[in-house]
Amino acid sequence: MSILVVGSVAFDSLETPSGRRERVLGGAATHFALAASFFTKVRVVGVVGEDFLPEHERVLTDKGVDTRGIERAPGKSFHWKGEYLRDLNEADTLATDLNVFADFAPKIPAEFADSEYLFLANIDPVLQLRVRQQMPNVKMIAGDTMNYWINAHRENLLKVLRELDVLVINDKEVRLLSGEANGLRGAKKVLELGPKSLVVKYGEHGAGAFFTPEVFESRDVCKLFRAPATPLEEVVDPTGAGDSFAGGFYGYVASQRTLTPEVFRTAMFYGSVMGSLCVQAFGTERLQRATRAEIDERFEQLRELSHLSA
Amino acid sequence: MSILVVGSVAFDSLETPSGRRERVLGGAATHFALAASFFTKVRVVGVVGEDFLPEHERVLTDKGVDTRGIERAPGKSFHWKGEYLRDLNEADTLATDLNVFADFAPKIPAEFADSEYLFLANIDPVLQLRVRQQMPNVKMIAGDTMNYWINAHRENLLKVLRELDVLVINDKEVRLLSGEANGLRGAKKVLELGPKSLVVKYGEHGAGAFFTPEVFESRDVCKLFRAPATPLEEVVDPTGAGDSFAGGFYGYVASQRTLTPEVFRTAMFYGSVMGSLCVQAFGTERLQRATRAEIDERFEQLRELSHLSA
Repeated sequence: MSILVVGSVAFDSLETPSGRRERVLGGAATHFALAASFFTKVRVVGVVGEDFLPEHERVLTDKGVDTRGIERAPGKSFHWKGEYLRDLNEADTLATDLNVFADFAPKIPAEFADSEYLFLANIDPVLQLRVRQQMPNVKMIAGDTMNYWINAHRENLLKVLRELDVLVINDKEVRLLSGEANGLRGAKKVLELGPKSLVVKYGEHGAGAFFTPEVFESRDVCKLFRAPATPLEEVVDPTGAGDSFAGGFYGYVASQRTLTPEVFRTAMFYGSVMGSLCVQAFGTERLQRATRAEIDERFEQLRELSHLSA
Repeated sequence: MSILVVGSVAFDSLETPSGRRERVLGGAATHFALAASFFTKVRVVGVVGEDFLPEHERVLTDKGVDTRGIERAPGKSFHWKGEYLRDLNEADTLATDLNVFADFAPKIPAEFADSEYLFLANIDPVLQLRVRQQMPNVKMIAGDTMNYWINAHRENLLKVLRELDVLVINDKEVRLLSGEANGLRGAKKVLELGPKSLVVKYGEHGAGAFFTPEVFESRDVCKLFRAPATPLEEVVDPTGAGDSFAGGFYGYVASQRTLTPEVFRTAMFYGSVMGSLCVQAFGTERLQRATRAEIDERFEQLRELSHLSA
């Protein structure tokens, strides 16, 4: 079934211990869509400038991603410049040039109205909410956010959280949102804010999930789940890992008929797989050349490294 | 089968966000022995001063731990004073009074000579090596160390590493020992130093294991394993968590006939269970009142939270 993702399509200038890249294709919606495209149909709503060329669009369309919702605006695309020289787990932002993204007002194309799964990538919660209101009949809504919205736009964000079936954020964002240093207490506080479930990304330590009983369509109950990460000898570029995780996770969820605890767990493993692929090259390079066979191989590796009986 | 553990039996003065305790029973050998006692027979070799009273000894003997190797010396027992007010994951040491421990020269009682499993807790590597030489016929040797020995006594420590079937340390110690920021590359470098396997403790993120093929008595191969930690809403006192992990892990290993990958994996889960119990009260309080039934219940929780099918 189709996922509609709303978020940034951008260019990133990056420096990591592995090297440097100028203006490579990036953005949360891009990474999410590429990762999810291995599992289900994905439709993107975003905005780009005149620097977004046919070669960039082909990165998405080659994977069957529907780009009819990517609006063209005069000027330049969103550009982010960052480096990971101090710590591979934490970007230092050198520049954020919003450009055409500053006036982004998401419009859902009529052809996208029947999307059953909605993903609200990390953008202004006011826009997230506006998109949600344009899609009253979706079956499921997941979303992301970041420290900036948590700190400075909390009231708006809280309205979004109440709409979500799954909130997908990292452990630092849980701490910021809940005010709790303890991860379990923090997760419980976040669930009290409204999302039916919470997926927390821990970087090299994988991801955890926390549930309210309402999230499952079946009557099954699952309290906690933990997915490992693929151990990697080299992380080339962490940019987009979290969005790729979300894409793998939500892509798998959307490919299944019912959301059971087992589907959720399997989706967490696929999220972890897509995150680990993403970081092995700059930008979207690695996701572009990924194959379903290697995705499933990596999935089996995760099972082997986490299960008592191999 | 019997484990012989050599290490500190001490008193700890602690302050954490949950409170304060003065001179409670602690020490690596104490935590290790209590945790392992739920799985197998444990014998302790250590030294204490005149402040070690019958009530302290009973903490161990009540669990069937053989204390005949705990030597009495004139003076006071090893005393460590630390706090976890800044960060629950990292102790700030306020005082280390070696006292009788300064002249510790481990002597293995004749009755302990037939111990099949040896655990060299975190002490001077020169002493670790001397104990190993007194026990030429042990079936298996595991050990721990810390930043001080890695930094200032590296040559001696390297001799110990070559003797070990399992080295059990934390992720910071792997980084220090290997000089590698990347966990997987670091683990591989540590294995090149001689231990047949490496167990890395990640605190709230559980533990990982890395293997050379030589560690297993069977011909099975296992490359990597990852055990989760029990999520806890409150960590009362982290002191001894790593030693309790090691005790649960090695206690289970010693209780089995052969070291297969599945035994190793199961042992990692039991290690995680014992570490999580330890931190729920000050000192050894929680391990003292633990039951095998709740240990197995927590084991099942770990299985549920990490396995795709519950």
